[in-house]
Amino acid sequence: MDLSDSGERQISWAARSMPVLTAIGERFGLEQPLAGVRIAACLHVTAETAVLMGALMAGGAQIALAASNPLSTQDDVAESLRTYGMAVHARAGVDRATYYRHIHQALDVEPDLVLDDGCDLVNILHTERTDLLERVSGGCEETTTGIIRLRQMAAENALRFPVVAVNDTRTKRMFDNRYGTGQSTLDGIMRATNTMLAGRTVVVAGFGYCGRGVAERAKGFGARVIVTEIDAVKALDAILQGYEVRPMAQAATLGDLFVTVTGNRDVIRAEHLSVMKDGAILANAGHFDVEIDVRALDEMAREVHRGVRPNTDEYVMPGGNRLLLLAEGRLVNLTAAEGHPAAVMDMSFSAQALAVEWLVGERANMAPGVYDVPAEIDHEVARLKLAATGIGIDTLTLEQEAYLHSWRVGS
Amino acid sequence: MDLSDSGERQISWAARSMPVLTAIGERFGLEQPLAGVRIAACLHVTAETAVLMGALMAGGAQIALAASNPLSTQDDVAESLRTYGMAVHARAGVDRATYYRHIHQALDVEPDLVLDDGCDLVNILHTERTDLLERVSGGCEETTTGIIRLRQMAAENALRFPVVAVNDTRTKRMFDNRYGTGQSTLDGIMRATNTMLAGRTVVVAGFGYCGRGVAERAKGFGARVIVTEIDAVKALDAILQGYEVRPMAQAATLGDLFVTVTGNRDVIRAEHLSVMKDGAILANAGHFDVEIDVRALDEMAREVHRGVRPNTDEYVMPGGNRLLLLAEGRLVNLTAAEGHPAAVMDMSFSAQALAVEWLVGERANMAPGVYDVPAEIDHEVARLKLAATGIGIDTLTLEQEAYLHSWRVGS
Amino acid sequence: MDLSDSGERQISWAARSMPVLTAIGERFGLEQPLAGVRIAACLHVTAETAVLMGALMAGGAQIALAASNPLSTQDDVAESLRTYGMAVHARAGVDRATYYRHIHQALDVEPDLVLDDGCDLVNILHTERTDLLERVSGGCEETTTGIIRLRQMAAENALRFPVVAVNDTRTKRMFDNRYGTGQSTLDGIMRATNTMLAGRTVVVAGFGYCGRGVAERAKGFGARVIVTEIDAVKALDAILQGYEVRPMAQAATLGDLFVTVTGNRDVIRAEHLSVMKDGAILANAGHFDVEIDVRALDEMAREVHRGVRPNTDEYVMPGGNRLLLLAEGRLVNLTAAEGHPAAVMDMSFSAQALAVEWLVGERANMAPGVYDVPAEIDHEVARLKLAATGIGIDTLTLEQEAYLHSWRVGS
Amino acid sequence: MDLSDSGERQISWAARSMPVLTAIGERFGLEQPLAGVRIAACLHVTAETAVLMGALMAGGAQIALAASNPLSTQDDVAESLRTYGMAVHARAGVDRATYYRHIHQALDVEPDLVLDDGCDLVNILHTERTDLLERVSGGCEETTTGIIRLRQMAAENALRFPVVAVNDTRTKRMFDNRYGTGQSTLDGIMRATNTMLAGRTVVVAGFGYCGRGVAERAKGFGARVIVTEIDAVKALDAILQGYEVRPMAQAATLGDLFVTVTGNRDVIRAEHLSVMKDGAILANAGHFDVEIDVRALDEMAREVHRGVRPNTDEYVMPGGNRLLLLAEGRLVNLTAAEGHPAAVMDMSFSAQALAVEWLVGERANMAPGVYDVPAEIDHEVARLKLAATGIGIDTLTLEQEAYLHSWRVGS
Repeated sequence: MDLSDSGERQISWAARSMPVLTAIGERFGLEQPLAGVRIAACLHVTAETAVLMGALMAGGAQIALAASNPLSTQDDVAESLRTYGMAVHARAGVDRATYYRHIHQALDVEPDLVLDDGCDLVNILHTERTDLLERVSGGCEETTTGIIRLRQMAAENALRFPVVAVNDTRTKRMFDNRYGTGQSTLDGIMRATNTMLAGRTVVVAGFGYCGRGVAERAKGFGARVIVTEIDAVKALDAILQGYEVRPMAQAATLGDLFVTVTGNRDVIRAEHLSVMKDGAILANAGHFDVEIDVRALDEMAREVHRGVRPNTDEYVMPGGNRLLLLAEGRLVNLTAAEGHPAAVMDMSFSAQALAVEWLVGERANMAPGVYDVPAEIDHEVARLKLAATGIGIDTLTLEQEAYLHSWRVGS
Repeated sequence: MDLSDSGERQISWAARSMPVLTAIGERFGLEQPLAGVRIAACLHVTAETAVLMGALMAGGAQIALAASNPLSTQDDVAESLRTYGMAVHARAGVDRATYYRHIHQALDVEPDLVLDDGCDLVNILHTERTDLLERVSGGCEETTTGIIRLRQMAAENALRFPVVAVNDTRTKRMFDNRYGTGQSTLDGIMRATNTMLAGRTVVVAGFGYCGRGVAERAKGFGARVIVTEIDAVKALDAILQGYEVRPMAQAATLGDLFVTVTGNRDVIRAEHLSVMKDGAILANAGHFDVEIDVRALDEMAREVHRGVRPNTDEYVMPGGNRLLLLAEGRLVNLTAAEGHPAAVMDMSFSAQALAVEWLVGERANMAPGVYDVPAEIDHEVARLKLAATGIGIDTLTLEQEAYLHSWRVGS
Repeated sequence: MDLSDSGERQISWAARSMPVLTAIGERFGLEQPLAGVRIAACLHVTAETAVLMGALMAGGAQIALAASNPLSTQDDVAESLRTYGMAVHARAGVDRATYYRHIHQALDVEPDLVLDDGCDLVNILHTERTDLLERVSGGCEETTTGIIRLRQMAAENALRFPVVAVNDTRTKRMFDNRYGTGQSTLDGIMRATNTMLAGRTVVVAGFGYCGRGVAERAKGFGARVIVTEIDAVKALDAILQGYEVRPMAQAATLGDLFVTVTGNRDVIRAEHLSVMKDGAILANAGHFDVEIDVRALDEMAREVHRGVRPNTDEYVMPGGNRLLLLAEGRLVNLTAAEGHPAAVMDMSFSAQALAVEWLVGERANMAPGVYDVPAEIDHEVARLKLAATGIGIDTLTLEQEAYLHSWRVGS
Repeated sequence: MDLSDSGERQISWAARSMPVLTAIGERFGLEQPLAGVRIAACLHVTAETAVLMGALMAGGAQIALAASNPLSTQDDVAESLRTYGMAVHARAGVDRATYYRHIHQALDVEPDLVLDDGCDLVNILHTERTDLLERVSGGCEETTTGIIRLRQMAAENALRFPVVAVNDTRTKRMFDNRYGTGQSTLDGIMRATNTMLAGRTVVVAGFGYCGRGVAERAKGFGARVIVTEIDAVKALDAILQGYEVRPMAQAATLGDLFVTVTGNRDVIRAEHLSVMKDGAILANAGHFDVEIDVRALDEMAREVHRGVRPNTDEYVMPGGNRLLLLAEGRLVNLTAAEGHPAAVMDMSFSAQALAVEWLVGERANMAPGVYDVPAEIDHEVARLKLAATGIGIDTLTLEQEAYLHSWRVGS
């Protein structure tokens, strides 16, 4: 079986669990809402992304795709997309220079719109490819990390076009970040280590939507979960959900398994690494590979054994304790497992597809800035998803509708 | 022991679990931020409310208090507050006319500010007591139901002063609505019925913060939970959390216990009542007693036996099935139990106290409308709560702070 | 309403949730399996017990009933049973002397069979009323605590008749001990204190069936649960279920709420009481009031405030910390709440009724000793319970039946 | 890296999580309790088994090993064991004839003791290799399935030597069956399908220890779980734990994912397959591949697509629905994942090692039959495991010890 056949098979497998995006793609095929639109996309090159690409192409878009992470590219999927005529600049395991070159190549399409996942492409556009900015009339960003960077750009008046914060839809945060990241992170850890989770102490750094998802799944597999946070409200929420909350300095001495998912850097650093137990496992589920200070680990370790298990490197610390770093500190769910299940990407990418359609219609009237996805898109995706699963909900009676709009009825 | 002593004891019991509000009250005593401010409040007259009243009075406010629900008043607490010189217009079990008269009496104080819980007082102010509106410079609203009504008033340009949506703080929604309502609702149901929850089918109507709390606690006691919703996104969230979602027409035939918590009326109505199982229990945890159509139940039943258990009436339906209505369809957690535990009200009422202080400072510059509580108040409450429990969290390093504000660092 | 009417109402309420026992009572009425049998029973005098008594009387038994706990007697239920001609020697709140006198009075019936709950009646029979032993041909024991004592008696050859360990049926341990004790213990704690459970640290001493139930319900209400144990296998089970396990010396410093449920004495003693946090709550769910060393607490406290809440006494410790003891260290679920929900007692008491019937048939052939309930009784109760709830299960096909009995078929 | 190096690395990885077995192996090395004992073993040839083999060999045993399942053999581990001089008759993916030939080859060692996992080796010994029976003085059996067969043999007086039911230790059932099977089954399903579990309906057939583990883990990943059972007591237990219970005929129409774990055959058969939803996934976690009627599936399907994903075959049913069979209906946790995590096998195999030691000492005095593992072995394993994790538990005071042995102290 050649590479593109294998990719085709994977895309077809993913599409089965993506009925909403498939339906949207069919409508796009009829309505051609993206006719003539050129898109540069920087996304994880996975089977689910391929289904999204298919929907956008069906809608008339011309797309150039680069990978948003050097490790997550599924080469067979990339190859398969190429057979459909898409320009795909991505290969698994490339070095940093090639990674950035691929983004530049995607930008060479001279895009009208950009789709980003982590803000690297938008960043390059605003720093090294400012010549292309004139043409770009809008973008979408998929991650919490990217949104943080974009809001900062907007605050500094550096952002030059409107960007839809696809990440911030309820559909995305409640479902993709929480359930997608939760499941796939634990999946990645099990594939890499086959470690027992029941009865182990799992430290989850960060209690945003992703962190909550990881904490829930770890608890659901019988672990004792300790949460670390920098935000008092989130910390309190974790406590009320029954989790322990501790500063990392304490948690570091207690954990059997650590998962960082904060969007920040150096969440686990030398002072923490030096007090960890023998056999502690370190995994990152945040977008960038900066959450665990791998450089510090490299400097501290007296020996490093690469590949003691798939995606697992062992660092022997000065005192003899062995720490196990998964996926070199990169996204463990995409590197050691297969990323989010297709069923949850169906919702995120459907929101993405509808956001692109909406952006094409509205971009002429939009100032540069970060925009929320219209609530209607959220509801449309949720409505389609429920319909696809055959689950019914209630509708308001006329009296109820009236009641909700009246403020004069009292106790 | 006389009534006010009993009230004092209860207030003192509640205050133990309210360290944050106590600390705020102490600061208010020193700083007098509410000196000379007249407040008309319409709140559940409970021990926790009394601690809030104490903090506001310590800050210099003069308060007149009416009950926000005829059934929730703790007479001994009311009496105890009166010994402190507060005008309390409330008595347990009054009829509708007296309920409204009490609100009018509270308004007779000619308030500068109003505190409301369900929007009844604000409603009367805008319909029957418009003469007082001139003086009122702001208000706070505590419930989801009230906020719905206020936003509708604002949308119709009917609202005449700024109101802070205390309900919409993260602290309130995430903690009070979810954990307070969750626990106290189940507590009320157990006190009223002593019914077994493990293995029973519990139907929760509404999956907002309160509904989620009720669902979690019912699941936590071993029940199979079915959720009904009108909102596709919330329905999907319930499904992904592992709940069944069904239309009420289906759920009505399956439930052993029904809890309405939607903010809407007629959520359970004749068509549902007529298909329920023998022995089904009906409870409401929404603000108003309109969620279960009690009138329909009265009309359909061929016999009614009041008080088969405390707060439990039995309705014998035409076919012989017996339905059990708790607390006459009023708030089961306040009627059959004691409302939210003090520890969670500590957060809501601390936010309320700080919102009042903020409103006093800012009201001069605020147009009529519904305002969010400033995020700083949320964080201040959470910070104080963590400090009171001795739980530490992390703080950002300088490098982390810088990283979060930089959009130029990439993969 | 007079006392016996109130009792009648409660018994009738309980009977609704006890369809299995009711059905057995109806069969007993027709078949009269207990005709002429005299029974002395020492049980909690509650509405559910009354339904059991009714079934046994319907079967032809003559019963004299004493209370198995001075605090759990429901006086109205006792009065109601008297109107049916049963000799009931029980009154709420009696002193120790009267408690034992009541047991002697029940024994005066000169029983053929005894029903015990904690082994006090059997103990008196073997020490102070040995004259009656001749006639007694069998007994049933309902609690873990009682079984421990009986097995010890049997080991010393002191036990003089066969006793069925009703407690040790799967139906009883899996359902009554776990779900009944779990729910009613938390219920009792909430009624006594209205304390928030979410986010609190609950220490459960003992991880038998009862302790497991308490731990599950505390976790289900959002608490962080710490388990203490003396048995390594149970400790490991708790760990693998995601609980923390610690020695009491450590747990004592961490808990907000302590629940003892071990069947042993002095589980919480001076050395633990002296290190507890201000506001710590102490509750016992074990059979006897010896699990918390109340005497030590009395001696250590510099002040005691009785009744700061219903069933709650406050002990001010030397350092100023306030400890709150619920129900004087007696069974919190029976004292502060209403004991196990009727639906779960339906199973335990149905097993009890069927065990009595079986004992009457078999006692002639049974040597003194502790006997397990026949597995068929367990299955019969479970089968009837499923039938009552309308839930279907599978039956074996002929091929499956054959397969399970063949050892010759391989991989 | 050659095969035996790869196996060595895996064995070494497993050994890290097996401190108890490692410690036992060290003691065996000193004490030589198995000196001169010849063992024929039929076990899953995995890294964890290799650690057990190492401990037994250290104790002086001579071992011949065959695989207990054609699909679970890790060839590199087998190769590595051979380098230590063990006779290993196993290779991944062999056909049925070779599978049985391997068992015969293992028996050729003329064993004193046998270790079995599913009873195939013992079966052959009693049917085809009766010549060897004379010498065999005992055995151990690791699975529920095997115990069922052995008890049947014993009931028919066909069993010729004492067999220790290692499966029936509390350590094994509570930990290995529940947590090991639970985690590894879900792990296998995710590796095979990457399917989303949150919000899906998972049908678990069988609610023994293994089924309970699968149900808990599925629930812990957000699934709605439906249990099928043939035993009323287990069904009731599932209900009280909050699961739905239905007959398979109903469940078949509702499930997105089916897991059989009953120890019986044809649990899912033609009548169920014909009503399943499009996309339903079928997995087996029971010992033999007879739980799903794969033959029926083959006959009914109008098309079969092998390998649409790793370990996943697609069956297109007459009506067009596609069913997905994992691992050909064989043990999904061993075939699609890596079997139980080493940490849990540490307990089972430690019990196994200690049972072998005990059997060697006692076999002379034991009649043929199925024996429970002595409770002391359970406690020893649990005690060692707690010690290895550094978790302390309480010990009885002298007064407590006395109290537990006295039946004379009362209320």
